[in-house]
Parts: sequence; C-alpha cells; structure tokens
Amino acid sequence: MTKESRRLRLPNLPLVSKEQLQNPSALCPFIEHTLLKADATRADVERLAEEAIQFGFGGACVNVCQLETLVKALGKAPVRAVAVVGFPLGATLPEVKAFETREAVRLGAKEIDMVINLGALKEGDDAYLGYDIGAVVKAAGDAWVKVIIETGLLTEAQKEAACVVAKAAGAHFVKTCTGFAQGQATVADVALMRRVLGAGMGVKASGGIATAEAAVALLLAGANRLGTSSGLKLLQNGF
Amino acid sequence: MTKESRRLRLPNLPLVSKEQLQNPSALCPFIEHTLLKADATRADVERLAEEAIQFGFGGACVNVCQLETLVKALGKAPVRAVAVVGFPLGATLPEVKAFETREAVRLGAKEIDMVINLGALKEGDDAYLGYDIGAVVKAAGDAWVKVIIETGLLTEAQKEAACVVAKAAGAHFVKTCTGFAQGQATVADVALMRRVLGAGMGVKASGGIATAEAAVALLLAGANRLGTSSGLKLLQNGF
Repeated sequence: MTKESRRLRLPNLPLVSKEQLQNPSALCPFIEHTLLKADATRADVERLAEEAIQFGFGGACVNVCQLETLVKALGKAPVRAVAVVGFPLGATLPEVKAFETREAVRLGAKEIDMVINLGALKEGDDAYLGYDIGAVVKAAGDAWVKVIIETGLLTEAQKEAACVVAKAAGAHFVKTCTGFAQGQATVADVALMRRVLGAGMGVKASGGIATAEAAVALLLAGANRLGTSSGLKLLQNGF
Repeated sequence: MTKESRRLRLPNLPLVSKEQLQNPSALCPFIEHTLLKADATRADVERLAEEAIQFGFGGACVNVCQLETLVKALGKAPVRAVAVVGFPLGATLPEVKAFETREAVRLGAKEIDMVINLGALKEGDDAYLGYDIGAVVKAAGDAWVKVIIETGLLTEAQKEAACVVAKAAGAHFVKTCTGFAQGQATVADVALMRRVLGAGMGVKASGGIATAEAAVALLLAGANRLGTSSGLKLLQNGF
C-alpha cells in the first residue's frame, strides 16, 4: 500500500467553524475520553467506556494493558478504541514500539498514539525518527497512527521537523503532548502543526485541556481531535 | 532452572554498617548513575558512562533506546548496564515487557528494572502480577530483574503484597519508585521491603535521593542499591 493510499484512508476530518460550536455538546465527537493513570483499574476503564458511549465521544484512550477491557466495554458503540505505545517517554526501540502496536491492534485498537523518540529529534537524526515512526505505521496496518511530539520539550524548529518526518513516514495524525511532561496543548502549537502538515492529516491537541473555551480555541486553530481526561467537567461547565 | 538456583545467582549483597560509610566515596559502589529523561541524547549517555567509570559507581541506568550507546561507552569497565522496561507506567502487556526485556538483554543489559502492573496490584490480582513479573524474569535469562512497585501510589498492604509476589516470581530486587510519579524513596519503605523480602533479595531505593545523608540512611535501612540522577552532587556535598 502506498503512502498516498494510506493518506486517502484518512477519515473525513473537516476543520470546524465557530458556528458549529455554539453548544458544548457539539464538542463531543472531537473528544477522546482519556485515562492513562498507571494505577487505573478495570472498573475505571469500564466507567470510561460507559461515559464515552453516553456522551458520544469520538474515541476512548487507555494504556495497552487496559485495551481488552476497553474494547469489550465499548462493544459495537461508535467510539474508537485508542491505545498509547512507547508511552510516555518514547524512549524504547522501534522494534518494541512495533511489537506493542501489533499487540494493540490484535486486541482491537483502531488508533495508536505513539511517542516520538525525543533524543533522536534533539540530535536532528531524522532518519532514525522516520524509521521509528515507520515501524509503528507498518505494524498498525489499518489502524491510524498518531505521533506525539511532546511540544513542551521542543523548540519551534524541532516541532516543525517532527511534523515533517511524521508526515513523510505515513502517520495519520500529529499530537501535541503526553500530559506526563512539561507543557500542554496550546493554540500556537496547533496552528504550527496545521500549517506544516497542511489539510491532509489530523492534528490532535492534548495535555491540560480542561475548559470548553480551550477546546473550542484549539479546534478553531486546526485541531481535529482533543485528548482529555476532563471531558465531563468540560461539558458540565459549558462555555 | 529452579527459583532457588536463580536466587543463588544473586550477587553478594551484604547490608552495610555505619562504620563502612564514614566517607562519601564509600557510597559509590551502591550508586546506580541514572538518566531516564525522554530527551536524553547519545552525548548525555556517553557522559553518564564516563562519570560512572570515573567514580566507580555500581551501575548506570538508561532507557532502552540508549542502551547500545551506554554499553559501548562502558566497555569493559566494572559498571553494570541497567535498562528500564515498561517504564514508567508499567501499564503495557506482559508480552510487551518480555519482548522489551529480550531486546535489552541482547543489547547488553545486565539488569532490568521493570515497572509492576499497578492496576492489577490495586485490584489484588496477584496471579496477573506474578505472570507479568515472571514473563520478564524468564525473558531476562541471566540478567537480574528489579521490580519497581511505585511506593508513592500504594498502601502499606499493597507494598507488602507487591514484595511477596515479586519474590515468588523469581525477581532479584524490589525497587521503590520510578521517579516519574508522586512519592520518593523513604527509610520507612526500604525497611518495610527488607522486612518482607528477608535477606535473600536486593532492595533498590530510588526517587529523590539527593544528599549523602539520605543515601546513608537508606543503605542502613536495608537498601543494597541507590538509583539517582544526583550521584555527583551527592558526593560533592559530602556528609
């Protein structure tokens, strides 16, 4: 399969307008309901799935050891199961990330959120970066791959380089933050990512998204997906 | 190989006395010089190895993607190469931890610091915990396995249960913290671990060890190894 045909398998990811976001519930399809705490239990994950179904969130995101529970709890609901890989440091081998990806897809993940190799990015080793991402893209098969670049640790030039490499490697999304390092999703970073990636890829904003206002601002800046563990609070507080 | 014979392959890990710790340099063999930052570069790891050799540290600990650089830089020096697995959340599959362990051992790791599955521990699912640790122990072959229990997230009963399961699964050490979650190495936790584990296993204290006084207190409480990224500062400041 060529990179181009992979790209074409991207979902319909239109950018939203302000008019479409007059009501907090309009945010729901863009929200990926997220639980990545190390000590989350199966009961916590089942609750996450129930809430995602109830509110019509676009996806639900967990650690790989919780994926089986999540997929079972989601059943046939139209909520995409998302698993993180090489998370949150991104500092394991490409082969390990690929193996973890294959296991996650086997367990039902429709999307893989992988963390980029930040040391290689700092060293400007684009070839290694591309190999690392490409290994996951290949292992993911039909699942989408989101590349977390951890914006809080990067210069502007490094953010741009990471986007360019992720696009060339066939990833489907670039994502701002893990939520486990310094930094959080900002309008400026989403705008940068959208500018570098163009319209053909997804941008996922994540890290510290806690209000509906912030969510709207990030979507208007070019994000297609919002990863947050504060989805319910965000809806309750409204605009 | 039986668990007992594995246990016998443990190193000579005597507990130290106050008399042996009159001089900060006496701490060096117990220190594992540690660099786990996501954006560490190869140059950072080479510096870590040089310092570990220069000061006679017992080990040097890195993420798996930096292990090849570490092993090469250590050469034939008597510093043990340590890699972290399933780090820092411990929330991936046992099979992924085992795969990552095999890769790390292939690249020269002499010790594997794995993170326990904290969700299973909170659920009291000892069978899963034991399977998760056992998968790594089996994959590690002759390398030692240290089980990080992340004390800062646990009750006293959970700390005890984690030690019991780690011992039964054939691990060589139990270790306090990743340094990436709340909590740090305390004298009380080291004493608890030593009490539950008995004399036949190692205890590694890690997380926030920044002074020589703290290091001495942890060793006297029963630790055999101290993981810290502050080894040089700790020696420079002295007692």
